[in-house]
Amino acid sequence: MTVKLNPPADLNEIDGIRLATASAGLYANPRDDLVIIEIEAGSNVAAVFTRNRFSAAPVQVARSHLTKTDPRYLIINAGNANAGTGQAGLEDADKICQVVAEHASTDRENVLPFSTGVIGQRLPVNKIERCVPDCLRHLHEDRWLQAAQAIMTTDTVPKATSKKLVLKGKSVTITGMAKGSGMIKPDMATMLAFIATDAVIDKSTLHNLLSQGINKSFNRITVDGDTSTNDACVLIATGRSGVEIKPNAGETFDEFQAALFEVCQFLAQAIVRDGEGATKFVTVSVEKARTVEECLEVAYAIAHSPLVKTALFASDANWGRILAAIGRTDIDAIEINNVDIYINAVAIVKSGQIADSYTEQDGQQTMQQEEILIRVILNRGEVTEQVWTTDLSFEYVKINAEYRT
Amino acid sequence: MTVKLNPPADLNEIDGIRLATASAGLYANPRDDLVIIEIEAGSNVAAVFTRNRFSAAPVQVARSHLTKTDPRYLIINAGNANAGTGQAGLEDADKICQVVAEHASTDRENVLPFSTGVIGQRLPVNKIERCVPDCLRHLHEDRWLQAAQAIMTTDTVPKATSKKLVLKGKSVTITGMAKGSGMIKPDMATMLAFIATDAVIDKSTLHNLLSQGINKSFNRITVDGDTSTNDACVLIATGRSGVEIKPNAGETFDEFQAALFEVCQFLAQAIVRDGEGATKFVTVSVEKARTVEECLEVAYAIAHSPLVKTALFASDANWGRILAAIGRTDIDAIEINNVDIYINAVAIVKSGQIADSYTEQDGQQTMQQEEILIRVILNRGEVTEQVWTTDLSFEYVKINAEYRT
Repeated sequence: MTVKLNPPADLNEIDGIRLATASAGLYANPRDDLVIIEIEAGSNVAAVFTRNRFSAAPVQVARSHLTKTDPRYLIINAGNANAGTGQAGLEDADKICQVVAEHASTDRENVLPFSTGVIGQRLPVNKIERCVPDCLRHLHEDRWLQAAQAIMTTDTVPKATSKKLVLKGKSVTITGMAKGSGMIKPDMATMLAFIATDAVIDKSTLHNLLSQGINKSFNRITVDGDTSTNDACVLIATGRSGVEIKPNAGETFDEFQAALFEVCQFLAQAIVRDGEGATKFVTVSVEKARTVEECLEVAYAIAHSPLVKTALFASDANWGRILAAIGRTDIDAIEINNVDIYINAVAIVKSGQIADSYTEQDGQQTMQQEEILIRVILNRGEVTEQVWTTDLSFEYVKINAEYRT
Repeated sequence: MTVKLNPPADLNEIDGIRLATASAGLYANPRDDLVIIEIEAGSNVAAVFTRNRFSAAPVQVARSHLTKTDPRYLIINAGNANAGTGQAGLEDADKICQVVAEHASTDRENVLPFSTGVIGQRLPVNKIERCVPDCLRHLHEDRWLQAAQAIMTTDTVPKATSKKLVLKGKSVTITGMAKGSGMIKPDMATMLAFIATDAVIDKSTLHNLLSQGINKSFNRITVDGDTSTNDACVLIATGRSGVEIKPNAGETFDEFQAALFEVCQFLAQAIVRDGEGATKFVTVSVEKARTVEECLEVAYAIAHSPLVKTALFASDANWGRILAAIGRTDIDAIEINNVDIYINAVAIVKSGQIADSYTEQDGQQTMQQEEILIRVILNRGEVTEQVWTTDLSFEYVKINAEYRT
């Protein structure tokens, strides 16, 4: 079940990036479950990892390798998260890097490992090891879709997108892919994203672009307000287009940044649209607040509420649950009498009470839609922020109750 | 569906407390939905109300009345929460008090109103008003069970309990009732509790006893870590037993306090056992932590996790989800390598990794039980705290998706 999400089409290659996939046998029913991404020497790479205090072994190894040298290879497996595996898990992740390094004639530290899947089981290193040489022989620029497919776990649709811009008279491309088995469960070794561009971007700018991009996309869908043991997002700039992206360089920078943010946002929203059991794509927009923090606190209180989410599933405009969720936040001096709530174009609550114009029929009708916009207007400042979420359905319970069986 | 919860039997009367119930027609299918409790003059009353910033009209009126004089009457209705109703709702709640006061020949401020049910609809004051005179004529000491039944909303079993002690050679009784439609949804105008004793207790001691009692009971089941728009808990001491309960008075005080806490805990756990869609009663015990706050943060992270809750529903010993939930907390320097996890008597995780002795079979077997104890041992301090929760089932989604239809 997805909410308006189609498989990607027309993914553009990125000069300087080659990819390959293989079936390492990490799933009972064979499928591609392994990806190697080769990054041309001279590229810059930025990465952001989970803030979960129990980060998985591959995250720890990738973090450490990244501080030492420039990555040349990423190796990603689905089917096993190598999380909760202690010292043995670290050795397994390191061993995978070593195998890639040997066959690619580079250093172990030039390889970053990524894993996603079931927590708490040893990584089947031998199975992966066997595939590496062949995988390296089949690297190709035109493998983004296959790679997006191979990193899926409970995803039902591969998630990838591409943008082409003309900057300073030259063509610049951004292509990205992500996997996420549903925003509702960020604690499940869920979210991986790999984005590449052929623009020339120095490391510090690249890191800033990634941080800001994530902040407006992947960090707006982590419904629990936090990340899993394995989450990672990587941004690569190969520089092969020759177009330099520098901050404070006016339009060129702004255009590139906007395109990058669109890619991030598309991928983040695609994760929600493919959310486990999702029947609705819900935008919670908190408006006229005093601060960003205040917006997010209110937005997440609503987006996390099982009561709001079940009402969304039932297409029930139960605004009392939305009000109660807002009231639970810790925001000083929030005044119910100033709060307005809209669902899509329908005014539901005005000044903390049911709107005079509101009818249950209008409410029900608008809640039938697959895309729901909940607007909460606090009327106490000038800041607006949005988060994206889904409803809570029978299917969600089913998927998560039966995940390991 | 309840987890080991039977209707109450043998509720003892409290000298100085009379109750009556009536059907005011607040439900489509007629049932008792109104309760009046008469409190003998000279009694002391303590009350704790929701911390939700959008507290319902009756909460605001009750709070205000309580500061002015000693309550003589409580009037409680189910079927309508009188929440999200603005100024009109305040007037409605006040009107109800006025009606009771007139017919009972007392002041409006001697009456406290309580409402529970659907949010955002005007209270049908006329329907309630009509019942008040008759209700007042039928007050009787022996109506605790009927009252416990009349305050139910989506509860499936009335919740009440009683304790008799002998203190200083005299009999002292505590009787309490509560309603709660499931801990998982404290934002639904959920929890009301009324507890009375014939002990002699001054106001300040009474308030302390109530606060501490709540802290070890009702505040340990609010899964969202907070309260609804209507939650209230009232403790009444009529003094008719003549036995004085004073702090620092040694055994008498300790025995009374222990009995009161047992009553609070029984009622709180009953709410969880009758939790919406609950198939399991789950105790999350966080042990060897540094502080109470730390215990609760970890315990709630686990108890709130939809992933942990669906695994509980599926009887799946998915300890990876428990570890990931702990890792999401904000606790400084928490070390996965020091964490042990038990489910019932089965050691699952030792020092952050799967226990050597653990088998999937043991895990599955113990997870089949209706009562689950999740013990998380942090091995960094001496503090232990427990919270109580349920699993997340199909039935939960069904109940909450269909609540208003």
